[in-house]
Amino acid sequence: MRVDIEQRILAANDHLAEVNRRRFAEHGVFVLDLMASPGAGKTSTILATIAALRDRYRIAVIEGDIASTVDAEKVRAHGIPAVQINTGGACHLESAMIGRAVDTLDLSVLDLIIIENVGNLVCPSDFDLGENAKVMILSVPEGHDKPYKYPNIFQVSEAVILNKYDTRAVFDFNEDEFRGVVRSLNGTAPVFAISATKGDGVSEWAEWLAGRIEGAKKEAAS
Amino acid sequence: MRVDIEQRILAANDHLAEVNRRRFAEHGVFVLDLMASPGAGKTSTILATIAALRDRYRIAVIEGDIASTVDAEKVRAHGIPAVQINTGGACHLESAMIGRAVDTLDLSVLDLIIIENVGNLVCPSDFDLGENAKVMILSVPEGHDKPYKYPNIFQVSEAVILNKYDTRAVFDFNEDEFRGVVRSLNGTAPVFAISATKGDGVSEWAEWLAGRIEGAKKEAAS
Repeated sequence: MRVDIEQRILAANDHLAEVNRRRFAEHGVFVLDLMASPGAGKTSTILATIAALRDRYRIAVIEGDIASTVDAEKVRAHGIPAVQINTGGACHLESAMIGRAVDTLDLSVLDLIIIENVGNLVCPSDFDLGENAKVMILSVPEGHDKPYKYPNIFQVSEAVILNKYDTRAVFDFNEDEFRGVVRSLNGTAPVFAISATKGDGVSEWAEWLAGRIEGAKKEAAS
Repeated sequence: MRVDIEQRILAANDHLAEVNRRRFAEHGVFVLDLMASPGAGKTSTILATIAALRDRYRIAVIEGDIASTVDAEKVRAHGIPAVQINTGGACHLESAMIGRAVDTLDLSVLDLIIIENVGNLVCPSDFDLGENAKVMILSVPEGHDKPYKYPNIFQVSEAVILNKYDTRAVFDFNEDEFRGVVRSLNGTAPVFAISATKGDGVSEWAEWLAGRIEGAKKEAAS
């Protein structure tokens, strides 16, 4: 019974995700769904990514939070359009919410939309938003054992960002073990070690993202 | 429609939570539901709490995780009984899962059960497990703005543990702002600043918990 309800919710979500996906493709907009725990540094990573790519791409951000507009305000302070979704209790974004947020953006003047999902290592991994790629962040203070406990989000992510890398001396983080478990769950996702607030490692991540954006453009043109 | 489904799930959960609550009360067992983000230090806090209270109380632990038995093994290594619940994807524990886990424990030889919920600042706050108290942990690296974004969990918690307090020099954590927002959301919950792995501040938290355990015993006896 519970499973049936979940399947109906997911099927309805997948239908609207396809609507979003066609809409993004028509306008040649690349959409990234960025997922992580609360406090892993999603907003800081978005700001660092904007700094690295704003000369090449026209960017907007969709911020998902249970409550507050803290994150959208931080992004707007950098002159980047940001739409705040307040889920009012829901622990993840769904494609219908993204559809309504996108209604407020002019897709014809955008190359890249970064969606900041609700801080949660579980539910966002189940919901297709119509994005081109899901990417996740794990931060060093969370610990190297997280892939054992939250395997699905590591499996659905096309890249893994290891943030707060500059703090690894302070925490007991076994990077070899972390990379090994990530590789066993996901044979293809690159792992980018970065410090979003200090900028270390951000260019490698940003170039990977730029490569994905260019790849999507070529595919759309062919 | 979606709301109706959620209400039915919550009503079913509340019914079984009452069954759990009566069962715990009959045996004089105090039950703590410990909630936090992934990597905030739930297991470390449980181990520190066990070290502080094991001479006074007979303790067992119920570990909730999507997957793996990493945490239960850590607890058992300290000679404390631990039951691992794998939710297989669900982002929170429910009272039915707790009921089945408790079936494997001998309540007549226990004073305290600590439940480690799934790492998630959202969903666990909605589910009554039949516990005596919900308590949450926020860790310093997550940032002082989390109460704005995840208000409900701060509202339902009877105490707030601020963990990894020893790392505050490394992070831009505004403790005054954090305490102020927590107070505005929850006028009664004490905030305990601790370092679970180093032991700083643990005794104040453990004494608060011991006070709650003694209070429940007195209430049961009257």
